[in-house]
Amino acid sequence: MLTANYVGENTIDIREAEPAPPAPGEVQLRVAFAGICGTDLHILHGSMDARVSLPAIIGHEMSGTISALGDGVTGWSVGDAVTVMPLDWDGTCPACLAGNQHICQNLDFIGIDSPGALQASWNVKASVLVALPPTLRLDHAALVEPAAVAVHDVRRSALVAGEKAVVIGGGPIGVLIATVARRFGGEVVVIELDAARRRAVADLGFAVLDPAAVDQVEWVTEWTGGAGADVVFEVSGAASAVLGATSLAKVRGRLVVVAIHPTPRPIDLQRLFWRELTIIGARVYERADFETAVDLLDEGAIPADLLITRIVPLAETASAFADLAEGRAMKILVDCQAGSSDDSGAAS
Amino acid sequence: MLTANYVGENTIDIREAEPAPPAPGEVQLRVAFAGICGTDLHILHGSMDARVSLPAIIGHEMSGTISALGDGVTGWSVGDAVTVMPLDWDGTCPACLAGNQHICQNLDFIGIDSPGALQASWNVKASVLVALPPTLRLDHAALVEPAAVAVHDVRRSALVAGEKAVVIGGGPIGVLIATVARRFGGEVVVIELDAARRRAVADLGFAVLDPAAVDQVEWVTEWTGGAGADVVFEVSGAASAVLGATSLAKVRGRLVVVAIHPTPRPIDLQRLFWRELTIIGARVYERADFETAVDLLDEGAIPADLLITRIVPLAETASAFADLAEGRAMKILVDCQAGSSDDSGAAS
Ligand SMILES: [Zn+2]
Ligand SMILES: [Zn+2]
Repeated sequence: MLTANYVGENTIDIREAEPAPPAPGEVQLRVAFAGICGTDLHILHGSMDARVSLPAIIGHEMSGTISALGDGVTGWSVGDAVTVMPLDWDGTCPACLAGNQHICQNLDFIGIDSPGALQASWNVKASVLVALPPTLRLDHAALVEPAAVAVHDVRRSALVAGEKAVVIGGGPIGVLIATVARRFGGEVVVIELDAARRRAVADLGFAVLDPAAVDQVEWVTEWTGGAGADVVFEVSGAASAVLGATSLAKVRGRLVVVAIHPTPRPIDLQRLFWRELTIIGARVYERADFETAVDLLDEGAIPADLLITRIVPLAETASAFADLAEGRAMKILVDCQAGSSDDSGAAS
Repeated sequence: MLTANYVGENTIDIREAEPAPPAPGEVQLRVAFAGICGTDLHILHGSMDARVSLPAIIGHEMSGTISALGDGVTGWSVGDAVTVMPLDWDGTCPACLAGNQHICQNLDFIGIDSPGALQASWNVKASVLVALPPTLRLDHAALVEPAAVAVHDVRRSALVAGEKAVVIGGGPIGVLIATVARRFGGEVVVIELDAARRRAVADLGFAVLDPAAVDQVEWVTEWTGGAGADVVFEVSGAASAVLGATSLAKVRGRLVVVAIHPTPRPIDLQRLFWRELTIIGARVYERADFETAVDLLDEGAIPADLLITRIVPLAETASAFADLAEGRAMKILVDCQAGSSDDSGAAS
């Protein structure tokens, strides 16, 4: 079978490998589709070399079917359609004992800290499987993981129906957050600098602002009858966006920081104080978020076809990374069976 | 009667004035004691000239008795011991309509935006009065306002019994927060650079750290069994403290920013994300906080005698400001009757 390997120096190398049989407690998956996200790009660009072991098969957004069961695995059958919640926690650290396993202090993020989905056949612990309904297409199901991020972000915001939310950043995660917030009853506006992304967001029926053309504080203040937004999602990663985000929120409003900010960012604490704002960190997802994401994709609430720019065979994974790096796509999926020399992916 | 006036240029001027009769809906107060706080110092130093009208009688921490009732005031009697919750809201803005009157978008903070307590006789709307029990000494009662700030901060933190809290900054507000957090069942450590303040904090029975001598992250990590603190209160106002505060908190821990940070401060959003922290703004207080503060002072839970460094007559208000500015005192009270030419303070 084929595997896509990050080998350092900005390079993805496609290699042949033999599928391994699943260990006890594991299942072997025939990976159908794997999505590439910003974190994968960070890995390719060397920013996470401290966490990955080269060569690294990365990828943590996927869909597939079970191709073999390891010893002791119950409740699953060969052929079941599944996705993976790529978190493996220790269950013993203070965070786990407090019920926050998804932010375990010794978390193994599968696809970063251990091998990922960019291969035709992938073995994972049965405990990380999430069942997919037969009605959900496997290409769409490859969006469950990023959709679960969005569900988690919206849940962390405590948004309730009727509230007004601003999403700063109209990329894939911004669009997913906007979609989930709307599905949960929120009114949403998206702020996005890039014209093509603004068009894509507008096509989904969202109000969208060009911050270079519109005074966003004035717009949001008027939109909310002078109050400010109930919730602001900072998805852009820009320092200026973080600094300005506090000005968009109402008294007691909530700001959810979704984007990764690798260096400390100036925050307007005077505004935080003056309006009693809350700034909320959100990381990955819990199982409930994953299950909600499956439901939202299955019911068609997530615009999967609009989000998936194209699908490439695994052999062309490197070009998919290049397109994403240059902002030429929302979401690119890798077809992990196309171009494989061993189409079955079954255990040898 | 005497009044203490901020007249600009770092100057407090003591002036003679005639007590005014209370307008309809107002009461006239015979001010017993007024406390001076950091905000008053900011005013003296010119930082809030945009909000004050010169000459300005400032002061918003006080105790006293009712000396006259204006027309239409019911439920109060001459001689009642009272303090003032110095907030006057419009009742009509989005924040008020959402129930957050204390952060009204058009708030009049009495003692800043309108005349304050540093005078022998002071007229206020009856709606801002808070009753004092006869068992509470009036000098101690002048601490109700700062104690209410601390109660509000601890309530905003959602601290529950058994949780561990770090208070960064061992000044008057830090000590009050530590005291309230302990009274609510928390275990508290205070971090303070100044040796004299550390001694005062230790005398109150708190664990106290010198951050120049101890690795505070290591200490807190060990103290919390590897978890990190449930709650961190940032009371120091130092940029470095804000930046470091996120490293002290556990997964899903809460950081309450109590100090005023006039310019944007770098915040470790990577840590906010990684541990799903929450940063909470807290401003002034609600009526419930004031009433709790009265109870805590009345039951002796607040170490009022230790906090009150000395009491000066109104004529010496300027020297009290000077001592506070140089860090030579925790809390100085002004005796607003001592040195007055009209000891009665009654309506003319
Ligand atoms: Zn753990
Ligand atoms: Zn208001």
